[in-house]
Amino acid sequence: MNFKEVQQIIDSDLKRVSETIRSFLDSKISFIGQVASYLIESGGKRFRPTVHILSARACGYEGDRMYTIASTLEFIHTATLLHDDVVDYAELRRGQPTANVLWGNEATVLVGDFLLARSFYALVGDEDLDILRCISNATTRMAEGEILQLLQTNNPEITFEDYLEIIKCKTAVLIAAASETGAILGKKNREIRERMHNFGMNIGIAFQITDDTLDYIIEDKTLGKTRGQDFIDGKVTLPFILAYEKSDKCEREILKNLFLKDEKDQNDFEKIYSILESKNAFNLSFEYANRYVEKAKEDISFLDSHYREYLSIIADYILERKY
Amino acid sequence: MNFKEVQQIIDSDLKRVSETIRSFLDSKISFIGQVASYLIESGGKRFRPTVHILSARACGYEGDRMYTIASTLEFIHTATLLHDDVVDYAELRRGQPTANVLWGNEATVLVGDFLLARSFYALVGDEDLDILRCISNATTRMAEGEILQLLQTNNPEITFEDYLEIIKCKTAVLIAAASETGAILGKKNREIRERMHNFGMNIGIAFQITDDTLDYIIEDKTLGKTRGQDFIDGKVTLPFILAYEKSDKCEREILKNLFLKDEKDQNDFEKIYSILESKNAFNLSFEYANRYVEKAKEDISFLDSHYREYLSIIADYILERKY
Repeated sequence: MNFKEVQQIIDSDLKRVSETIRSFLDSKISFIGQVASYLIESGGKRFRPTVHILSARACGYEGDRMYTIASTLEFIHTATLLHDDVVDYAELRRGQPTANVLWGNEATVLVGDFLLARSFYALVGDEDLDILRCISNATTRMAEGEILQLLQTNNPEITFEDYLEIIKCKTAVLIAAASETGAILGKKNREIRERMHNFGMNIGIAFQITDDTLDYIIEDKTLGKTRGQDFIDGKVTLPFILAYEKSDKCEREILKNLFLKDEKDQNDFEKIYSILESKNAFNLSFEYANRYVEKAKEDISFLDSHYREYLSIIADYILERKY
Repeated sequence: MNFKEVQQIIDSDLKRVSETIRSFLDSKISFIGQVASYLIESGGKRFRPTVHILSARACGYEGDRMYTIASTLEFIHTATLLHDDVVDYAELRRGQPTANVLWGNEATVLVGDFLLARSFYALVGDEDLDILRCISNATTRMAEGEILQLLQTNNPEITFEDYLEIIKCKTAVLIAAASETGAILGKKNREIRERMHNFGMNIGIAFQITDDTLDYIIEDKTLGKTRGQDFIDGKVTLPFILAYEKSDKCEREILKNLFLKDEKDQNDFEKIYSILESKNAFNLSFEYANRYVEKAKEDISFLDSHYREYLSIIADYILERKY
C-alpha cells in the first residue's frame, strides 16, 4: 500500500474535511475564499489532516470533532505558506504562480492573518482546552522557527542543532500537533499523547530534511520550485552542513565564499552542487531523514490495530518523495 | 480630569500590564522582543489595556486575570500595526521609522505572526472559553476588515455603510472586545456584556473616524504621519464620502478624477482638501465622531460607580485628539 491508497481508506473523512474547510471559508467576503482555496484546494496533499485522522482513529476516536481540527491544521499550514511566499518573494509554488504574484503581498499577508484567526475561532468553538493548548503552542513555535530561520540566513556556520531547531519549529511541531491532537481526541493518557507527539515530530523532521535535500536535486517542474532555491536565498540546510563538517579548512573557505557571494547564479549553484555531491552530502542527508522515519515508526510500535500500518506507510511516504 | 489623569488612577495596573507584556516577549529569540517592544514600548498610549482595565473594574472585577487579557489585546493590536505597515509600505509611525524600514518586511510579518500566536497561547492559559470566543472572533473580524479595506481601495463610490463596516472591523471590534471582556471577568449577564461591548464598539468607531479626519488635517510631525496619506494610498474615508454625497454630478466627476489620478502629489491633495473643506466635510466628520461618543456614554449610563466617569473621560479623549 502507498500514501494514496491509505488516503483512499479514509476518503470519506477527507471529504468531510474539505466540506468543513469550505464552510470555514464561507465569509461575506468572497475574495478570502478565492485566495485561500487557490492554495488549499489545488495540489495540496492534505498531509496534516491525513496524519490527524489516522492518529485519532488509531487512538480509538470515532466522532466528528476531527474534521474541525484537521481543517484548522490545514488553515494554519496554508497561512504559513502564504506568509512564507511573501517573506521569500517566491513566484512559484507547486508549479503555479504564488498568491502574492496573483493578488499582491498585501492581500496575501491579510488572507494569511484571516486563516490564523479563523482557525482559533473554530478551535474555540470545539471547546477543548487541551486541543487549544496543543495547537496554539505549535503555532507560536512555528512563528519562532520562521524568525530563527530568517536570523540564520546567510550563516554558513550554522550548527546541526540550530538547523534541527529551525525545522522542528517551522515544520515538525504542526505535524506533531496533528498526531498529538488525535491522541487527545481518543482520551489517551500522557504517555501515549507523548508518543503520538513524537511520531509527528519525527516524521515532520524527516519531511523537512527530505524537502531541503530535494531542493538541491529535483528539477523545476516536479515541485514547482527552482532547483537550488534555498542556496540562492541564503538558506543553509542539511546537505551543506554535512559537507561543511567533512571539509578541511581550505574547502570550508570555498564553501563559505560560494554561499556568501552577492549575486549567486546557476553556475555557482552547479559548483556547490558538485562539492556537496563529492562529499556524499545528499545520500547522507537522506540517511538522516530515514533515521527519523525509523524513530517515528518506533514511536507507534505500541499500536496494535491496522492504523499502525497506515501510519507507517505515511512515514515511509516521506522518503519516497525523492523518486 | 483628562485621559492621562485617568491612566494615573490605574497606574499600578498599567505597570502590571507592562510586566506581563515583557514576560510574554521573553523568548529564547531576543530579536522578537527587540522588534515587538520597539512598537509596544514606544509611544503607544495603552488605549486598549486602559479600556479593558476600567471596564473590568467598572464591572466589579478585582483579580489578576485582566493583566493577561490586556496584554493580549495590546499584542493583537501591535500585530496588526506591524502587518499594516508592510501592507501600506509605511515608513513612519508615531514619528519613528516603521519596523519594516528598520528590520525588513520579512521580520515584520513574522514578528506579527508571533504576537498573534503568542496571544492565543496566553489566552488559552487563562482557560476561559467566553474570553477566548470574544477575542478570537474579534481577531477574525479584524482580518476581514483589513481585506475589505484593501478591496475598496481606489473606490471613490464606497458607501457610508461599507466604510462603517470597514472601520468597525479593523478598529472597533478589538476595542469592543476590550470592554466586553471586562464584563466577562466581572461575571455580568448577557445584557450588560452587550452594553459594554457596544460602548467599546462606539468609541472604536469614533476613534477611527477621528483618525481618518485628522489624516487630512494634521501636519507631519504630530502623528508621525504624512498629511493626506490616506488620499495618496487611495483609501476613501468619511470626509470624502460626506463631501461626495453633498456634491452635484459635475463636482463628483472632479472628486473622482482627483482620487483616481495615477501619481497623486501634494498639489492634488491641496485641491481635494479645499473641496472637502468647502463642503464642510471635516466638521461634519467630527460631528459623526461626536455622535458615536455620545452613544458610547449612553451605553454605560447603567454604571453607578466613579468608573462611569472614568470611561466617559476615555470616550471624550477620542475627540480631544484633534487639538
